[in-house]
Amino acid sequence: MPEKKHIVVLGAGFGGLTFTQKFRHPNARITIIDRQNHHLFQPLLYQVATGGLAMPDIAEPVRTILSRREDVQVLMDSAQSIDTEKKTVELSHQTLHYDYLVVALGMVNSYFGNDAWAQHTIGLKSLNEARRIRQRVLNAFEQAEALHDPSERQRLMTVVVVGAGPTGVEMAGALSELTKRVFKKDFRSIKPEQSRIILVEAADRVLTMYSEASSAKAQESLERMGVELKLNQAVEDISEACITVGGERIEAESIIWTAGVQANPLVDQLPGDHNRKGQIATEPDCSLRGHPEVFAIGDIADLVDCKGVRVPGVSPAAMQMGKHVARILENELNEKSKARPPFAYLDKGSMATIGRSSAVAEFGKFQFSGFPAWLLWLAVHLVFLIGFRNRLAVLIQWMYAYTKYRPGARVFEKPTQN
Amino acid sequence: MPEKKHIVVLGAGFGGLTFTQKFRHPNARITIIDRQNHHLFQPLLYQVATGGLAMPDIAEPVRTILSRREDVQVLMDSAQSIDTEKKTVELSHQTLHYDYLVVALGMVNSYFGNDAWAQHTIGLKSLNEARRIRQRVLNAFEQAEALHDPSERQRLMTVVVVGAGPTGVEMAGALSELTKRVFKKDFRSIKPEQSRIILVEAADRVLTMYSEASSAKAQESLERMGVELKLNQAVEDISEACITVGGERIEAESIIWTAGVQANPLVDQLPGDHNRKGQIATEPDCSLRGHPEVFAIGDIADLVDCKGVRVPGVSPAAMQMGKHVARILENELNEKSKARPPFAYLDKGSMATIGRSSAVAEFGKFQFSGFPAWLLWLAVHLVFLIGFRNRLAVLIQWMYAYTKYRPGARVFEKPTQN
Repeated sequence: MPEKKHIVVLGAGFGGLTFTQKFRHPNARITIIDRQNHHLFQPLLYQVATGGLAMPDIAEPVRTILSRREDVQVLMDSAQSIDTEKKTVELSHQTLHYDYLVVALGMVNSYFGNDAWAQHTIGLKSLNEARRIRQRVLNAFEQAEALHDPSERQRLMTVVVVGAGPTGVEMAGALSELTKRVFKKDFRSIKPEQSRIILVEAADRVLTMYSEASSAKAQESLERMGVELKLNQAVEDISEACITVGGERIEAESIIWTAGVQANPLVDQLPGDHNRKGQIATEPDCSLRGHPEVFAIGDIADLVDCKGVRVPGVSPAAMQMGKHVARILENELNEKSKARPPFAYLDKGSMATIGRSSAVAEFGKFQFSGFPAWLLWLAVHLVFLIGFRNRLAVLIQWMYAYTKYRPGARVFEKPTQN
Repeated sequence: MPEKKHIVVLGAGFGGLTFTQKFRHPNARITIIDRQNHHLFQPLLYQVATGGLAMPDIAEPVRTILSRREDVQVLMDSAQSIDTEKKTVELSHQTLHYDYLVVALGMVNSYFGNDAWAQHTIGLKSLNEARRIRQRVLNAFEQAEALHDPSERQRLMTVVVVGAGPTGVEMAGALSELTKRVFKKDFRSIKPEQSRIILVEAADRVLTMYSEASSAKAQESLERMGVELKLNQAVEDISEACITVGGERIEAESIIWTAGVQANPLVDQLPGDHNRKGQIATEPDCSLRGHPEVFAIGDIADLVDCKGVRVPGVSPAAMQMGKHVARILENELNEKSKARPPFAYLDKGSMATIGRSSAVAEFGKFQFSGFPAWLLWLAVHLVFLIGFRNRLAVLIQWMYAYTKYRPGARVFEKPTQN
């Protein structure tokens, strides 16, 4: 019996995890590596940041998800380097040899060359960042309640969100509801309805990847909720608790960065063409040119599919790529087929929610917004949340928050202990 | 109309919160101060530490609990000093004058003079500490899975709990279940059943405040679950990842301290007799001698009640004292009665759980243990959890964990980012 083929998967996001769940072959074993112990349902991360959900509601240990797969080894580690000639991945304490490598490392925050801005803002890619945003915003309002200086109070009650993509729009909407509506009954000295939630965007509209009609609907919802929109305005500078936009200095305790992402720096080590976001060009089958044993899937892949569509950096695309590569490798190990089919992206539509009972959704030619879109958003997110327990817990939190205006996770630890 | 009396409450634990909830008077207003934004249901903190519950499940913002009380101002702050002559409490940014002061500051970890031990151990008094324990223990097993050195693996898979009071016993039981049973299916390289959970106690039995029969039952349960008991053994030294007990050096990645508590240092500033734990002697009505306008309630009070019973440092006692002082002050403000009744402690029994489906309970002369005691423990803890949403969420987590052996909150953030 020949030795089993070793497949190494880097990253347990939507792409890497889907590949691992879909691929099964008696002559192969998988090692999946992630620097966190959990798969994170990133689309709901903004709700952890705004106190609507608890951290375990949207995360599940990778090890637990895969505990029945005896052929899968899960390691919590960070790859230090990749050698595609020797076919090795170097981890903190060991070097793994692979027969096949699936790189699904995802994106990190990008500051367009202004890396100093990172220390004055909080991104929204990990549970840790969501926790820091929750801590920062809730603590600011607690401080404002204990102080009497009006300008200091206003600074503490100002939150700036940079970038009006889906994450920025959802974040600004949720923040506005939290500070202007939920806090209203809770404070005695400050007036939470006087808080400022500012959404900054360099383009001329929010949600640029959506149709202009959906953009306009989203913009209308945001304005109705009291979010201040600053469109067509690039960020000029960010320093400690201060952001300069279109010549205006805005003092704000909390600055949240959802403006840009770039491929995980490790992707630079892969041979091939990288675009300005650090994404790597792949062959139509998702493999690297000259390295049919190495695949790049998910956000880090720069790929125009066989129908001429540029595959977007969204979770359904990552999952579809993971599944596609799983089929290719199963066929190859079965020696059934030498020809690898090209990847074809199936657009299942997209949607973004803007606070309580408002959303925009687009499915091909169909666009809708408002309450029906919001109900659909609820249903889709519940269905895709991993694990029954989480689904039920999240449903209860949402029902409670909807009927009582009481998001359940408005608890934080003292920032000094971070 | 005379100015309203100002009542300042320090601490929003069981004592301070109960006082504030029970006391109502048109001629009074309350300011309640806590250094955290939440009331914490401390009896379930060990379940957050062992991944059974999420942090918001056992904590609720004080502000939210009291949002309907227009007469109550909540401040998240730490009292810097108390002046019982001037009747002032100094906070970070302001000084409050009080007519009545209710001190309910609770206990902090005590290392019996060995304060250096604090940095090598983690206590269990706050959400932050529970989070750190979860992170430490789960991360240790992840590291062990990625390493190959057997002695280093054993060190990582060893947890020492110091102190076999209710917290230590519950902690050791939950840890043993987590590492020896839950982890069993999840790991490929290490054998989680070889993990060591060691419970160290200076006395000759666990749960010394219970009867000898209950102690023996608890001990039996712990041993059946694979907890190593080291009774009659005082801690000699603790250094980085190493503890010396009875001449034996034990290398352990995680050392949890539940051995001792002392009154919050601020209690030292109150005039009167302090015992060796820093608790302050009170008059029978819970006020301080010579200061009928200052009350000390909860764990920090050193009081033998009117029936000759030393009031124990448990949450029901704190709640009863809070209620008692609320009645006294209401009567006084109504000018109904000058005589203050002495506090009488009503022992409602006590119970401790030892892992899945085992517990000990004592109610006066009645003692029981095993599954019936565990069911009772479940019911009581659900009833006393504050807020309907939390109760339902916790019930679901417990049902899921019980039927599937899958505690739901085994998610942590990378320790490097703390």
